[in-house]
Amino acid sequence: MTVTESAAPGKTAESTAGEPEVAVVIGTGLIGASIGCALTAAGYRVHLRDHKISHARVAASLGAGVIEAPRTADVGVVIVAVPPTSIPDVVGHALRTYPAAAVTDVGSVKAGVLDTLWERDIPLERYVGSHPMAGSQHSGPVTARADLFEDRSWVITPHRRSLPAAVQRVSRVVQACQARKVVMDVEDHDAAVARVSHLPHLMSVLMAGHLNAVPAEDLVLAGQGLRDVTRVAASDPDLWEQILGANSAAVLMELHQVRDELAAMINAIEAVPRSESLRLHLERGVAGTQKIPGKHGARQVAYSQVVVEIPDQPGALGRLFSDVGAAGVNVEDISIEHDQVRQVGYLALSVAPDRATDLADLMTSRGWSVA
Amino acid sequence: MTVTESAAPGKTAESTAGEPEVAVVIGTGLIGASIGCALTAAGYRVHLRDHKISHARVAASLGAGVIEAPRTADVGVVIVAVPPTSIPDVVGHALRTYPAAAVTDVGSVKAGVLDTLWERDIPLERYVGSHPMAGSQHSGPVTARADLFEDRSWVITPHRRSLPAAVQRVSRVVQACQARKVVMDVEDHDAAVARVSHLPHLMSVLMAGHLNAVPAEDLVLAGQGLRDVTRVAASDPDLWEQILGANSAAVLMELHQVRDELAAMINAIEAVPRSESLRLHLERGVAGTQKIPGKHGARQVAYSQVVVEIPDQPGALGRLFSDVGAAGVNVEDISIEHDQVRQVGYLALSVAPDRATDLADLMTSRGWSVA
Repeated sequence: MTVTESAAPGKTAESTAGEPEVAVVIGTGLIGASIGCALTAAGYRVHLRDHKISHARVAASLGAGVIEAPRTADVGVVIVAVPPTSIPDVVGHALRTYPAAAVTDVGSVKAGVLDTLWERDIPLERYVGSHPMAGSQHSGPVTARADLFEDRSWVITPHRRSLPAAVQRVSRVVQACQARKVVMDVEDHDAAVARVSHLPHLMSVLMAGHLNAVPAEDLVLAGQGLRDVTRVAASDPDLWEQILGANSAAVLMELHQVRDELAAMINAIEAVPRSESLRLHLERGVAGTQKIPGKHGARQVAYSQVVVEIPDQPGALGRLFSDVGAAGVNVEDISIEHDQVRQVGYLALSVAPDRATDLADLMTSRGWSVA
Repeated sequence: MTVTESAAPGKTAESTAGEPEVAVVIGTGLIGASIGCALTAAGYRVHLRDHKISHARVAASLGAGVIEAPRTADVGVVIVAVPPTSIPDVVGHALRTYPAAAVTDVGSVKAGVLDTLWERDIPLERYVGSHPMAGSQHSGPVTARADLFEDRSWVITPHRRSLPAAVQRVSRVVQACQARKVVMDVEDHDAAVARVSHLPHLMSVLMAGHLNAVPAEDLVLAGQGLRDVTRVAASDPDLWEQILGANSAAVLMELHQVRDELAAMINAIEAVPRSESLRLHLERGVAGTQKIPGKHGARQVAYSQVVVEIPDQPGALGRLFSDVGAAGVNVEDISIEHDQVRQVGYLALSVAPDRATDLADLMTSRGWSVA
C-alpha cells in the first residue's frame, strides 16, 4: 500500500493551547541537524540531544535548535536520527522519557527496528517509523540546511498499533520539512529501498572495487561516466554495513536477479556479432532510465516540439537562439531533423506544451520558417 | 607504454609557408563540430563534411568552419568523426582523397579500425588513430563547444608504420583543442577503455535494465544515487552497440572478473552478520573511488588542516565561516573532531598546504582558538 501526498508550504506548528510545539531531535548529524533547522523555521521549539556535545553545538549554531534539555512532559514529538544499530535502544528510551510524545526514527530500514522493539515488549502506540529520502556523502551537522528535504519523498511506516494522533504528529514534521509524504507498509518500504537505493549502492561498490585491479595509467582516461557510476561507493562503510546488514534478505533477492541478468549480458556479448541480444540489453537500459521519475518526484513531462528550418546563413543559428531566449521560453531539448531529399534541415525545439504556440508565433513573426 | 603531456595554451596553426593550416573534419556531430570550433579558434582553416548537410550547416553556424570543399592538395590534417562502423571506410577514403594530409579518427576503440585498414592493403603511413576522452549524452552539433576537450585526456595511438610528421600533425590538433595528449599502444588503449569506460557503461545498463522489473511506486523513492549510477545507461544504444561490439574481447575479460566479484559480494551478504567480509567489500569500494584521478586529470591534492575550537556561543559558527571567507582561502572540506574528555569540539578546515599558515594566523588574530 502506497499513498503519496504533495508537500504544502510549511506552516507554523502550534499545540492546541497556542504554544509552539516542542520537538526533540536526538542525533545531530546531517539529517538530524537539517530536521532541526526545518522545524525551527516552521515554528517548532526544538531541543537538540547528542552524546557528542560538539555536534549539538554546531547544529545549534546553525539554527537547528537549542542544546538545553526540555521539560519532558512538554515534548510533542521526538525525532531519532542516530546510526541504524542504535535506533531501537534510543527509540525505546525516548518512549519512556517523553510520556506524551510521538516518536519517530529516520533509519533507512524499518522492519528490524520494529521487530526488536516488539520483542522488548515496549508499548509502541506512540512510535511511527519514517525515512526521509535525502542525504549526502557528507555527514555531520556542518552541511545541514533547512531545505534538505524540500520536495523529497519522506516515507512514514505506521504499524498496526500506531495511534492516529502519533501518525498525525509525525506527518506534521514531514510537512514542516516541506517533504512529500509517502505512506507505506514496513515490508513494502524495505523491499522498495532494496531496489532503488541498496542495490544501486552495491552496483557502485562493485564497479569501484574493481578499480583496485586497474592500472593507474588506465585511470588517467577516466571520464564522467566512471565518476558518476562510482560516486556513491565513496560513502561511509560504517553506515552502509549497518543498512545492508539490516536489509540483507531483500537485498539478496535483488542481487540474485542481477547475477542472472549479468550472466545473460555476458552471453549476449560473447555472441557478438552474430546476435541481436546486446542491442536488447542496451535498449532495456535506456527504458529503465526512463522509468525513474523526474527530479523532486515530479512526473516526467511530455514536451511539444516547435520545428524551425535551419537557414543557410553563417551566424543564423546564434540569432535563432537569441530570438528563442528573448521569447522567455525554456527549451528542454534540441534535436536536428534532416530532409534527405530537399537537403535541408530542421531544428526541433522541445518546450512545455502550453508554450509551444506562443513560441511558434513569435518565431514566425521574426521571419523564421516554422514547419 | 603510456606517455602523458600537459596541454599548452592553443597556439596558431601555421604551415611552413605562413599560411594557416587547412583541416577537414568529416562528421559534424558533437565531437566533430567541437573539434571544428576549437581548431578554428586556434587559427586553422576548417572545412566541414557531413552526408547530412544540415548537420554541417549547424556546425558552420556555430563557428566550426566552412561547408565549402577545400582544394584537396592543401589539406594538412583530416579528422574523421563518424560512427564507429563507418570509420575504416571513411579513413581509407580520406587517405586517397587528400594526398598530403595526416588522417586521424576519434573512435572509442582502436584495434579493429587498424586491422581492417591493414587487411585492405591501404598505405597507412599518414594514419594515426586517436581518442578524445570527452563527450556527452547529447549528440549532434547543437551542443558543440570549442572547450569540450580542454584539460581532458586525448589518446593518440600511433602504429608501427605511422610517419613522425603525421604523429606531429595529429598532436598539434590535440594541442589546439587544449587537451592533454596521452600516447598509448592500440592494445593498451583498448584494454584501458574497456576498464574505465565500457565496463562502467555496462554496470549502469545492468542496473537501469533491472529497473524494468521494479514497481513504479518503489521508483518514487529514487534518490540521487540511483540517478547517478544509471545516467550513462541513457546513452544512444546504436553507438554503444558498435563500441562494445568492436571491443568485445577486452570487455569480456573485465565482465568475467566482475561476475566473480559479484558472486563474492553475494556470499558476503549471505554470511551477515557472522562475517566481516561485507565490510571489506564496502572498504574496497571506497578505496577504488580514491584511485580515480581528480577532475580534469589533476592529481588529488593532499590538504592541510587548520583546526579551530568550536565556541559555545549561538551564531558563532556563522561568524567563523564569514572570517574564513574574508581570508580568501578556499576550504575544500570541513570535519568535526570531538574531545570526549574535555567535552569540547573542533572544526578541521582542509585547505591547500601553502595557505594553512596564513589562515591559522588570521583566525588567531580574530580571536579564534586554533589548535
